[in-house]
Amino acid sequence: MDSALSDELKRLFNRAPFIVDLGIRLDSLGHGECTTVLPLQPRHLQHDGYVHAGVQATMADHTAGAAAATLLQAGRIVLTVEFKINLLRAAKGERLICRSRVLKAGRQFTVVESEIFCSALEAEQLVSKTTATMAMVAPQNG
Amino acid sequence: MDSALSDELKRLFNRAPFIVDLGIRLDSLGHGECTTVLPLQPRHLQHDGYVHAGVQATMADHTAGAAAATLLQAGRIVLTVEFKINLLRAAKGERLICRSRVLKAGRQFTVVESEIFCSALEAEQLVSKTTATMAMVAPQNG
Amino acid sequence: MDSALSDELKRLFNRAPFIVDLGIRLDSLGHGECTTVLPLQPRHLQHDGYVHAGVQATMADHTAGAAAATLLQAGRIVLTVEFKINLLRAAKGERLICRSRVLKAGRQFTVVESEIFCSALEAEQLVSKTTATMAMVAPQNG
Amino acid sequence: MDSALSDELKRLFNRAPFIVDLGIRLDSLGHGECTTVLPLQPRHLQHDGYVHAGVQATMADHTAGAAAATLLQAGRIVLTVEFKINLLRAAKGERLICRSRVLKAGRQFTVVESEIFCSALEAEQLVSKTTATMAMVAPQNG
Repeated sequence: MDSALSDELKRLFNRAPFIVDLGIRLDSLGHGECTTVLPLQPRHLQHDGYVHAGVQATMADHTAGAAAATLLQAGRIVLTVEFKINLLRAAKGERLICRSRVLKAGRQFTVVESEIFCSALEAEQLVSKTTATMAMVAPQNG
Repeated sequence: MDSALSDELKRLFNRAPFIVDLGIRLDSLGHGECTTVLPLQPRHLQHDGYVHAGVQATMADHTAGAAAATLLQAGRIVLTVEFKINLLRAAKGERLICRSRVLKAGRQFTVVESEIFCSALEAEQLVSKTTATMAMVAPQNG
Repeated sequence: MDSALSDELKRLFNRAPFIVDLGIRLDSLGHGECTTVLPLQPRHLQHDGYVHAGVQATMADHTAGAAAATLLQAGRIVLTVEFKINLLRAAKGERLICRSRVLKAGRQFTVVESEIFCSALEAEQLVSKTTATMAMVAPQNG
Repeated sequence: MDSALSDELKRLFNRAPFIVDLGIRLDSLGHGECTTVLPLQPRHLQHDGYVHAGVQATMADHTAGAAAATLLQAGRIVLTVEFKINLLRAAKGERLICRSRVLKAGRQFTVVESEIFCSALEAEQLVSKTTATMAMVAPQNG
């Protein structure tokens, strides 16, 4: 990934209001890969004290989109077509780490997997797994 | 649905910090059904000005959980096992309305569908569709 | 749907070896809609005597593809991008009926829902629900 | 996995009529893992000569079920709750190999991933990825 694309993606990441509002931060970007981090706050929780599935879904989707975007052709944008998330364990801890990886890149659509880990004390546990389909479209196709 | 259960579910709804923080409000609860509303704010958006998929996923999941909870046996709670969301159209407007309906209620698992509509001016358009599996568990089964 | 497209789709349906082999028959085609029928045989079953999930998945996918194809632009073909099936009840009976309906048609992607009913004696029960994403591509894009 | 369970699972595998009919063979079973093979025949194809998505879905589901069954408590059975399959590439070749692995085992449900590879000449390519939720139930809970 060239540094101009990398800079552009970092800039876009910090301009998505919902992501900035939640506190999700870009940790690293690579060829077909992205990692993000979310320091957990009380407002991210369910009434039972566990992280809300919607917080994980947001992080899984957005990180997957950034991973797909590292492989974009010029003049194209990434749109989420669909994603499915399996919640594996109740998540409680200090922060979430999301690691997304492109499984198959294509001209029209790209499939990405996102794994979210919850870290507490010194341990890290896989708490959800997402598979997402991203469309790579010219902006007017929205 | 008896009014004690209904009151309990309304109380729980307003105690989920992430839902309160986003501004998602309970509109109605029925037997296997729930409707919620979200007045859209700039912080709910992507960098392109459309509603973030994560906002829709959160609303679809939480409303589905409330719909499943209307059919709960005493002493059980609802946990999301998985959900899949298909984004059908870019969502831009004044508010989202989510209508969830139980497709099949079971002792262990309940399957719920959530449709999200975006309203702008006087029109309302279906913008996403979600199918969710909810587990009905005793609290210690987490 | 014009009758030339309808004739072409019927012809294609009967040329898919796996569908012919399983015994899945086209029942009706409409604008964004398709219904198919499968008379159940012992070879369609699991070891427990219920219809195998794979039989339902095949029927749900193929019928969804045919429903999407009724809305095709000339020179395009339908490819399955992904589908998710929720098994709602154990299926045992004389035949399966699959009803597919386009939820959202697009130039690049079309989203279709398939409901499978199992009929036994005079009753008919919903046994699974599928949501599928279909790509509408020029043949060389495979 | 003890050898009695292993023998029982192999026996069950060969008693599922739809799997035997399609020609899917058990290749190996381990702790939370299963691999199966399908020598491709003309009847497994779509009208375009590629493997039908339903064949892949059947193989992904059944192999996932067998992987989950290696972790079963006595007196329980495995039922498919749902699965989602992403088709990544058109599959054409001599045989399919499905590798399933339990991502998270639980008392009530187990999440399994299945990857299907298509082999042609000497190369092997990933053609689909599935994530499945399996319920571990007492037989009367069906």
